[in-house]
Amino acid sequence: MKENSAGLVRTQSVTFKEEFFLQSGRILSPVTVAYETYGSLNEDKSNAVLICHALTGSAHAAGYNSPDDEKPGWWDDMIGPGKAFDTDKYFVICSNMLGSCYGTTGPSSVDPSTGRPYALRFPVVTVKDMVKLQKKLLARLGVEKLFCVAGGSMGGMQALEWGVTYPDAAESLIVISSAGRITPMAIAFNTIARFAVKKDPNWMDGDYYGKASPRDGLAIGRMAGHITYLSDAAFHKKFGRRLGSQESIYDFNSVYEVENYLRYNGYKFTERFDANSYLYILKAMDIFDLSYGFGSYEEALKRLSAKTLLIDFTTDFLFPPYQTDEIVDIMTACGNPPERVTIDSDYGHDAFLLEFGEQAAVISAFLRKVRKK
Amino acid sequence: MKENSAGLVRTQSVTFKEEFFLQSGRILSPVTVAYETYGSLNEDKSNAVLICHALTGSAHAAGYNSPDDEKPGWWDDMIGPGKAFDTDKYFVICSNMLGSCYGTTGPSSVDPSTGRPYALRFPVVTVKDMVKLQKKLLARLGVEKLFCVAGGSMGGMQALEWGVTYPDAAESLIVISSAGRITPMAIAFNTIARFAVKKDPNWMDGDYYGKASPRDGLAIGRMAGHITYLSDAAFHKKFGRRLGSQESIYDFNSVYEVENYLRYNGYKFTERFDANSYLYILKAMDIFDLSYGFGSYEEALKRLSAKTLLIDFTTDFLFPPYQTDEIVDIMTACGNPPERVTIDSDYGHDAFLLEFGEQAAVISAFLRKVRKK
Repeated sequence: MKENSAGLVRTQSVTFKEEFFLQSGRILSPVTVAYETYGSLNEDKSNAVLICHALTGSAHAAGYNSPDDEKPGWWDDMIGPGKAFDTDKYFVICSNMLGSCYGTTGPSSVDPSTGRPYALRFPVVTVKDMVKLQKKLLARLGVEKLFCVAGGSMGGMQALEWGVTYPDAAESLIVISSAGRITPMAIAFNTIARFAVKKDPNWMDGDYYGKASPRDGLAIGRMAGHITYLSDAAFHKKFGRRLGSQESIYDFNSVYEVENYLRYNGYKFTERFDANSYLYILKAMDIFDLSYGFGSYEEALKRLSAKTLLIDFTTDFLFPPYQTDEIVDIMTACGNPPERVTIDSDYGHDAFLLEFGEQAAVISAFLRKVRKK
Repeated sequence: MKENSAGLVRTQSVTFKEEFFLQSGRILSPVTVAYETYGSLNEDKSNAVLICHALTGSAHAAGYNSPDDEKPGWWDDMIGPGKAFDTDKYFVICSNMLGSCYGTTGPSSVDPSTGRPYALRFPVVTVKDMVKLQKKLLARLGVEKLFCVAGGSMGGMQALEWGVTYPDAAESLIVISSAGRITPMAIAFNTIARFAVKKDPNWMDGDYYGKASPRDGLAIGRMAGHITYLSDAAFHKKFGRRLGSQESIYDFNSVYEVENYLRYNGYKFTERFDANSYLYILKAMDIFDLSYGFGSYEEALKRLSAKTLLIDFTTDFLFPPYQTDEIVDIMTACGNPPERVTIDSDYGHDAFLLEFGEQAAVISAFLRKVRKK
């Protein structure tokens, strides 16, 4: 365990038995949500920070679940004593998103009406549904108003959705490498993943539980995802055109280093993630559009009253900086100019999980300012 | 048939019975090459232009193979009477590349030693091998020296290879949307295609001939390719976030227009292309490096003595403009500065097949200049 970590934490969960109404009109009951907390809620309950994870993350954002863990939570460099999200000051909460497979109800959960996993009988869930469930959890934890909601990528979408759907519920928002809707090119990448999973014969229309899982399809889908997490510059730096095998280039099976990387990460992912959850969460990402229900992107963003910080990275082509420009322009025109910092990085979209120095400094300074307000 | 086309053309072929030595040290025998010609060879045999096709193209570059054909050859807008490659002036030849499946020997051809298709017994072929076979064909056609070699994408690689391997064989080179080696990110996209085909249970280590073909895998692989042929801007223009189905977004199977496009084009491709050919040609693309055998990229490019025109397109991220910058810089430092035109286009890599106006004008002017030299 690293010294300045949030220490040993336990993933907890709460189950709501009452009906949970989804944006689609469908109902889930019961709904379980897994979460972790770091630090303590202060007396006037004004120091709660909600961290929203990205596509395939979990509630385990910081610290260690066991003293033997080799790695801490996925954003441990940002959350802990003295860190950007300082657990000496803030009560930090992170919950696993609805539809995922890390303890929160999703397609691999048991459908009480059949006693078997939901599989495709699971309803399509949206970012708004995810946020609604987070709000329910926070109420249970005694948090009425958040000091901040923060997240990167799909976590940033949730932060934006908080600001628009519950404008009074959070004092500040931090939206990193994200946007109010993804680009058609991002949908195209998700399409590759969808086809790869669905065409794997083991997928069997989603009813693979207890049998062989659609491992190859999920791995290929994840490989396509990995391309979007990097950048052209990152590919050059990380791999170049170095060969990854001892075979001669004239061997049909010879590979480049970049292929080994994709294969390794693609298949490693299949050991930890459920294929149907992946499909449902990609779907939620695709159909997320901040403007739904508000008429336009402008009308939606007008609702934001929280103090907002937007962080983007120069080489991110999954959530290109022009998407952040758009939000800045609209919010500024609405008289609620956000803070915006573009960080120069070769890491592409992954930068929010890798570039901690400047990112942490910018977030610390922003939170300090909000606190003093 | 359009009026100003090259008219009715027949794809011809020639078979070489003697041993054809490959760069890998392996041997093919016999080797057949399919080709088309447009216009006539002049008396002093000085007007021959070789057009090299891209990844999945064919020898059918212009005109119509039958009066009933709905579409002409793949570069008909550029090749024909009065066009950039003016068939009133030039004797234009286009041959199907080695390893492909449009009449030239490839993995789906019959291996004379077994009487069955080669499948994976086919040797790995390289761009240098493709060019060597073109040279053999030209000799057979009575062409000793080319007036020009031109091609886009993988066709441009062949043009560069001509210039470096046979510096005296062509008076001029036109290299479009191409480079002397692909980027690691391009290899990553090819990796997705490779895995998608190889993990399709119908692929059966390549021995699927006469049985069901690995259609799903090939379609998914091609979808990944299609992402690289477009650009972020093209995705916005062509599809935006428009829905492509009547279902509600809350339907698990609802799709966006971009998904319909990828699916349609992915599966359409499987009707015309052999999966093993795709793997072999992707391999040739990956392992192509102009510098092989010359020590360095600089040493290879130093060998170019032909008058060279490089065309690239602003939004091409498969062959990014910085790759053309690199060639220009090296050739200029070697005292053989090329002409270089960067065309502003939203079409991405596909631009060389779609943007004819400026491209045609630039090529016409270049060829005129070379002729007057």
